Amino acid sequence: MNNFEFQNPVKVLFGKGQIENIANEIPENSRVLVLYGGGSIKKNGIYKQVMSALNAFTVFEYGGIPANPEYGVLMGAYKMIQEKNIDFLLAVGGGSVIDGTKFLSGAATFSGEDPWQILTEGIPTLKGMPFGTVLTLPATGSEMNSGAVITKADTKEKRVMGGKGLFPVFSVLDPLVVKSIPTRQLQNGVIDAYVHVLEQYLTSTHPAKLQDRFSEGILQTLIEVGPEIVKDPSNYELAANFMWSCTMALNGLIQKGVPTDWATHMIGHELTALHGIDHARTLAIIGPNLYQHQFENKQDKLAQYGKRVWGLTGTDNQKLAEEALNKTIAFYHLMGMKTKLSENADNFENTSQIIFERFAERGWNELGENKTIGPKEAKEIVEMAY
Amino acid sequence: MNNFEFQNPVKVLFGKGQIENIANEIPENSRVLVLYGGGSIKKNGIYKQVMSALNAFTVFEYGGIPANPEYGVLMGAYKMIQEKNIDFLLAVGGGSVIDGTKFLSGAATFSGEDPWQILTEGIPTLKGMPFGTVLTLPATGSEMNSGAVITKADTKEKRVMGGKGLFPVFSVLDPLVVKSIPTRQLQNGVIDAYVHVLEQYLTSTHPAKLQDRFSEGILQTLIEVGPEIVKDPSNYELAANFMWSCTMALNGLIQKGVPTDWATHMIGHELTALHGIDHARTLAIIGPNLYQHQFENKQDKLAQYGKRVWGLTGTDNQKLAEEALNKTIAFYHLMGMKTKLSENADNFENTSQIIFERFAERGWNELGENKTIGPKEAKEIVEMAY
Repeated sequence: MNNFEFQNPVKVLFGKGQIENIANEIPENSRVLVLYGGGSIKKNGIYKQVMSALNAFTVFEYGGIPANPEYGVLMGAYKMIQEKNIDFLLAVGGGSVIDGTKFLSGAATFSGEDPWQILTEGIPTLKGMPFGTVLTLPATGSEMNSGAVITKADTKEKRVMGGKGLFPVFSVLDPLVVKSIPTRQLQNGVIDAYVHVLEQYLTSTHPAKLQDRFSEGILQTLIEVGPEIVKDPSNYELAANFMWSCTMALNGLIQKGVPTDWATHMIGHELTALHGIDHARTLAIIGPNLYQHQFENKQDKLAQYGKRVWGLTGTDNQKLAEEALNKTIAFYHLMGMKTKLSENADNFENTSQIIFERFAERGWNELGENKTIGPKEAKEIVEMAY
Repeated sequence: MNNFEFQNPVKVLFGKGQIENIANEIPENSRVLVLYGGGSIKKNGIYKQVMSALNAFTVFEYGGIPANPEYGVLMGAYKMIQEKNIDFLLAVGGGSVIDGTKFLSGAATFSGEDPWQILTEGIPTLKGMPFGTVLTLPATGSEMNSGAVITKADTKEKRVMGGKGLFPVFSVLDPLVVKSIPTRQLQNGVIDAYVHVLEQYLTSTHPAKLQDRFSEGILQTLIEVGPEIVKDPSNYELAANFMWSCTMALNGLIQKGVPTDWATHMIGHELTALHGIDHARTLAIIGPNLYQHQFENKQDKLAQYGKRVWGLTGTDNQKLAEEALNKTIAFYHLMGMKTKLSENADNFENTSQIIFERFAERGWNELGENKTIGPKEAKEIVEMAY
């Protein structure tokens, strides 16, 4: 097991009716900026619940943060933070709104010239403006971690940021929000969480047995509840299991002490930036091809995954691994994913070449748990996905 | 799934050589009181490593905290904290030293007359004196939770305390310590952690699927590494899995959103108080009899446990549950436990009656996840264990 540090200070308020408790978690007399997305929270009643819970505070709001939170849009909120002397941020939304809020938390305390530097120069945020979240879309785990992904539209870039200052002070996880999520977003949420686990699990084998068991437990739960929650999103118990699985998939716990991959994400981000494909769907396109490309490194773990998660039997690891891969693709299809790039984008023929060039330009030569994925391999994987 | 709040701010420093990093986690100019037990840390080199890491601080020490940390002994350290103006505590030991340090953390900030009131009146510690831990004996999970159990020798009492002020600021988990732990303590550690999980898992069934999977993962890991670590305590990877499993068994995560039992512990504590039996061994004596006594309530969960953890097959839940119980007892025996009270104590005949009276006196009428265990049931369970 690798040495590790683990600390996750987020206070999770989980369950029905928890939104009304947020006032207890925000410092008195705070000037709160509520951030949200396209306005679905005004239709499903969450906006009203949040505003009612905040009635003792001076509240401002900034809506319209798009999926793949966009730098230009966020800079509008950044201006507002300064003009209105905001001192507490509240994200009400899914991963995009929460990630956008993390950017603002970091930008508000950034001493450099241009907040975009945080992303291009990889500057960690050690102390950000405090913020809470009310999660409306289980998927990314952003509500209980300290990372964010930000998009710049004009240059078609997706960049990551992080740092221990970017943990939410609190996060409300009320499974009642799930019933008003559209099918496509539910599908995306399940697959996003599933691939988060695979990035931290489907590597070369290693001696950290408990972390493997936890990862397998999340995968098994998602396999069990994923197809059901899509059919019956108002089932509270399914929603609760779905929601908690998404959070646990990326709150830092299962990655401690083990090698991690993340190359599927790095390639997938490019597909979103270039073609606007939903994040989760890029993972379903790239992942299986990446595992196939790295089959030799991952074969034994794929076999373990096949046996423990999919209940496969046998002793031939190669066969088990192949079968596990097929089970995975079938699960993605069952969850409404189309796993070929050609099914998700027009004019995709240059994609592999562009990704090759971007990887080369950034010096991304050693991605994956064995540092075996560079520009050439990324290009090959993308072409396998055509 | 039940509503829950979850927050665990402990910073875990896991792995080889982490002791030397503790100085970074303690505020500058602290006056540190190092607390330890019977002195084994002076033989195995840990004392030296800790003192060397603390050389920039003003350091005092207080050794001799016994297993089942004793109020009278702790009050000696309490006096020292006041006389020496201590402002940071460092527990170097197992669960007993850490629990004792938690008591001191709470006592140091307690505004009442007598710190023993914290335990008799169940007063939560919301802000204690800050403390860190260097774990030398994986077992109790105390290094990553906010609870403690304290013993009073003159009245033969074991009492619990807790509160969000009792989380360690940091805990060092260095698996290298495992190699110098005596066999009996290793056996106890495995069983203690195992029963911690069962208290939070082996209840009536409930809809929280992910929590069940995590619990099953810890149990499977302990079953896998437990017998091996006893044979080969200097195997680092076994030690690391054992250590992390013990911590995860009782850091609050797996109990969130689910019913919990804890009656095995409440009865077991009395066996330690009355007969001085090792804590883990009391759990191995009581647990299986309690599950048998509560068979109707727990049968379906026992069957699930049998299938998922022990790999049993079949569809008859009663048979599966019985077989799972037998597997559990066999595992306890394999781990060196003697599961009858008569094998662990002389003059035990009055035990059930004394426990009946103590339970009655304290009004413990509704223990267990279904509130079905009171004085009469505790008496019956203890007699089943004779």
